[in-house]
Formats: sequence, structure tokens, C-alpha cells
Amino acid sequence: MTTLVFGHKSPDTDSTGSPLIWAWYLNEVQGVDAKPVLLGQPNTEAAFMLKRWGFDMPEIIEDVADDQPCVVVDTNNPAELPANINGADVQAIIDHHKLVGGLETKGPIDITIRPLACTATIMYDLMGDDAAKMPENIKGAALTCILSDTLEFRSPTTTDRDRDVVAALAADLGVNVSDYAAEMFAAKSDVSAFSDAELIRMDSKEYEVAGKKFRVSVLETTAPEIPLGRKDSLMETFKTVEAEDGVDQVLLFVVDILKEEATLLVPNDLVKTVAEKSFGAKVDGDVVVLPGVMSRKKQIIPNLAV
Amino acid sequence: MTTLVFGHKSPDTDSTGSPLIWAWYLNEVQGVDAKPVLLGQPNTEAAFMLKRWGFDMPEIIEDVADDQPCVVVDTNNPAELPANINGADVQAIIDHHKLVGGLETKGPIDITIRPLACTATIMYDLMGDDAAKMPENIKGAALTCILSDTLEFRSPTTTDRDRDVVAALAADLGVNVSDYAAEMFAAKSDVSAFSDAELIRMDSKEYEVAGKKFRVSVLETTAPEIPLGRKDSLMETFKTVEAEDGVDQVLLFVVDILKEEATLLVPNDLVKTVAEKSFGAKVDGDVVVLPGVMSRKKQIIPNLAV
Repeated sequence: MTTLVFGHKSPDTDSTGSPLIWAWYLNEVQGVDAKPVLLGQPNTEAAFMLKRWGFDMPEIIEDVADDQPCVVVDTNNPAELPANINGADVQAIIDHHKLVGGLETKGPIDITIRPLACTATIMYDLMGDDAAKMPENIKGAALTCILSDTLEFRSPTTTDRDRDVVAALAADLGVNVSDYAAEMFAAKSDVSAFSDAELIRMDSKEYEVAGKKFRVSVLETTAPEIPLGRKDSLMETFKTVEAEDGVDQVLLFVVDILKEEATLLVPNDLVKTVAEKSFGAKVDGDVVVLPGVMSRKKQIIPNLAV
Repeated sequence: MTTLVFGHKSPDTDSTGSPLIWAWYLNEVQGVDAKPVLLGQPNTEAAFMLKRWGFDMPEIIEDVADDQPCVVVDTNNPAELPANINGADVQAIIDHHKLVGGLETKGPIDITIRPLACTATIMYDLMGDDAAKMPENIKGAALTCILSDTLEFRSPTTTDRDRDVVAALAADLGVNVSDYAAEMFAAKSDVSAFSDAELIRMDSKEYEVAGKKFRVSVLETTAPEIPLGRKDSLMETFKTVEAEDGVDQVLLFVVDILKEEATLLVPNDLVKTVAEKSFGAKVDGDVVVLPGVMSRKKQIIPNLAV
């Protein structure tokens, strides 16, 4: 049976590109019949990557059948995976997030989690000398994933290894890193076609703090004026999303990639308290700028308080 | 703060030796201040390894403090770890068991799980070229761990990689593998000093099947006549252990390493049903021989039915 390789729901660039990379490796190096799939529509940056490097749009799947062989990449969180994931035959996990503790496997399998910025960097290392065999489009996907997850090395999640792999790939491909990253971020920033609810859910994870459920949403952009120009209708839509998703509060951080700061929308006193207690911010009005805040994983979630 | 490196409770050879190996690697290669510790008295084979290769008995700890830096080896199951493990700062996990899904980490960490027979084999591979720097006693510990977990390659968990690493280590050390394994197994088989309850709990894991809680105990030995000569008092003691540990039934498998078979004690109709449904065995009397059964992980647990 064909092994399905997929990342998390609401696929970003890493969750779109890493399945392409690993399915290539399984097929061409390991001799395992494998197919990359997605758990939803890729975001605009991921769609740019697919087009730029000549990939067909991968199939989008809704769930996995019992005993379906799978490789899970870029997550280990069952909440971000198909409903039947614990019924499937998960054969490997490659990830760079904290272990959340809900996924079980039927037997001992290959699990590799590393504190690097990007799943693609881990894959590059796992391949060893075989990484040199990657064709141009797979190298392009890896380059795009790492530049995306590191925000071109601006994110505090960036490690030296992520930098080194980007340098090697860019040299191989003859790509100018800063020009290419600017193209990627322009694609990511082109969010005019999305509804407010789609923007809120596009890159969003749920966390519980002090008994309150938050949907922590991030919009990384080089054009913050586009989402911030819609802040009133976005904050109005928080209420709909909260009701539909069963969370207490949406927190929407608009991350300005170039200025290296986040702007948090502050629709009410709860979010004002969160901004003050989590980031020591002084809030005055319905937005607050958080200088230097770029990473949900490293800077937002560990500090979240209410 | 010193990083503590430990395996599971009721430490066997791998859970005693792998902390020695990895603490050496952290101290001598990675420059991290690390100390191997145990979560209980090592079994007789593990004690033989310590003596044979000139190690001091590691400290036995009861629990870990909040934010204590730890590396967890040979398990990922919180039930087999200190009570406060999710309050500690787990920095890495190296294991060869299935992901059971109860352990959480505070951030992204190094997790390496591989379907090999032994944690020491995974460590050897993780070290890469640095494995050659291991001093004689650390190589001896690694050799002992792999021969123990593979039952000198008789266990169906054995992989080619486990065999290759044993061959390399034995050649380096000038050790004759079959002579050395015979010494190890003789040490493991010397269980005369243990009470019935100690024997039952020595190498034992809890599993739930069809709503019933089983304590699945294994005694690997080259002298099965020793525990089997005590079968009546062992079966009598099942009741005490079941009451004390809150399980429905002890299943005790005496694994004959040389004949490559297990003998299951059958004190009642429940265990008779388990033997029949799990292994297709015909039970007649208070013991049943299961030819070829050597591995709890590969042969007992996946087949357990009631």
C-alpha cells in the first residue's frame, strides 16, 4: 500500500514542502512507494513554492483509513492530524515541535524530533550523503521551507544548522537568498482574497492558559497595513470564530517580518490583560506593538499569561 | 545544573548501561555536565555488567525536582519514570519502544526513537565517528546492553544493525561473543536471592486488554528449572502482587533463552483463556510451553487477547 506523507492541517510552507521532500526520498532512495498529500488548502506562500518549483498541487485528504501507512511530518499533535490518526499505521514522525503527548504508535517506529527551525533541515540531515541526490525542485522546496520557518533567519528559532543548509541549497540552485525570500514573503503577504475568518484561522493553534482556551493566530507579512487596515472587521469576526471553534478568545498577532515586531489586536479587556501580563506591554487603544516578537513557539506561547 | 541521565524503573541491563554510555558522551564529547542515575536496584545481569567493566554503582534516585535537566533513555512511558517527570526539564529522549503518548516536553527537544533492539545501538549511531572515542568500559557496557536486549541475537527484535554494532565492539574489545553472552545469561539466571514478589516485578510492564489490567512479567533465563521449581509459591504470590499493584492478573512468562521458548504459568481460567486466545495454545495443567516466544514487545503484547 502506498505510504502517505503529510504535515499538519492548515498547511503552511513547511507542512506542504516537507511531505514533497520526504516522499521523494522514500520513493527514490529508500525504494518505498510514497505519496505526498495535504490536510487542507496550502497558504499563499506554500502555493507560490509549488508553482515556482513546478510541482502539481498535491491531493488534499480528509481522513486516513485504518492501517493506512503514513509518515507524519512537522507535527506530533493529534489535534492537527486526521481524526483517525491513531487507527492508521504511523511508520515515522519527523518534527521540530515539543512533544504534546497525544499520539500513540502501534509498535516502535522511527521518530526524529530536533530543536531546529524547520522540518526540512532535519530531513536534509537524516538523508546524509543522499541529500546531494535531490533534484532541483526538491532542493527548491527545502530552501523555501527553511526560509519560511526562519523568516529569512529573523526568527529566534533559527539555528546555525538551518543557516548552513540554506547556504548549501542556495549555492547549488544559484538562488540569491534575499531576493528569493522577498518573493516568498510577498506571496505570503498577498492575503486580499481571504475572508476575515480565513485570515484568523490561516496559521492558528489552540492553547489553554489558566483554564481559558485561546486560538493563537499569527499572520507573518511584509505588508502589515493590509490586515491592520481590516482590524475592525477582523475583531468583529473574532466573536464568530470563537463561537464556532469553542474557544474563549482569539489572539491575532500581525508579524511584520521586515520590522521584526508583532502587532496584537486588542478587542477587549481580556486581551489587554494578556498583552500586559505576557509581554509587559502598555496598552492604549485597540492595537499594541510588541517589538522583537516574531515566534509563536519561542516568544508567544511560553509567555502567555492571563 | 548537572543533567541526570536515566532509564526506566526496575532497571534492566539496557536501562542501566545506556545512561552510563550517554552520560559519558555528554561529558566527554558534548561538554555537558551529566550524571547517570538509576530508578531502582539493577537486575542481576545489570549488576554483573557494572562489576565486569569496573563501574561504581550509580546513585538510585526516587524522583526528580522541578526543572531538573534530564535525558530519558530506553523508555518514553511516564508510568515507568519518576512521578514528577512532566515537571522536570526533559532535554532529550533516546528510545526503542512504541510512543505511548503520555510524556510532554516544555519545548522542542531532541527525540530519537528507532525500531532497533537496543537503546545502546541507537546511541552508537547517534555518536557517529565519536563512537570510536568510547573507552573500554563504555564499549563493554554497550556490548552488554545489545547482547542482553537481543538475547544474543535470538530475539525477533534483533536487527542487522544490532548485530553489526556487537561485531564491531567485540572485535575492539577482544571479547568472544558467545562466551561473554553465556556469562551474562548465567548472571541473569541467578535469581535465587529474590523473593517471589521480587521475581514477579523484576521485568514487568502493565498493559490493558479488553478492560482488564495485566502485569506482563518476563523472566529470561538459561536455567528455567529455578523459577519453574517455585511455580506454586509464585502463583500464590500473584494474588498479593495483583492486590498491591491494582492489576487484575499477573502473567509470568519464563523465557528459556537457549531453547527459545516461553513457559507461561496458568493459575486460573482467565490465564488459560489468554494462553488459548493469544497464542493458540492448548492448555492442560498449570503451565503451558509457547515454542519460539522470546519477546514481550514483538510476540506477547501484540497478540494479547482475552
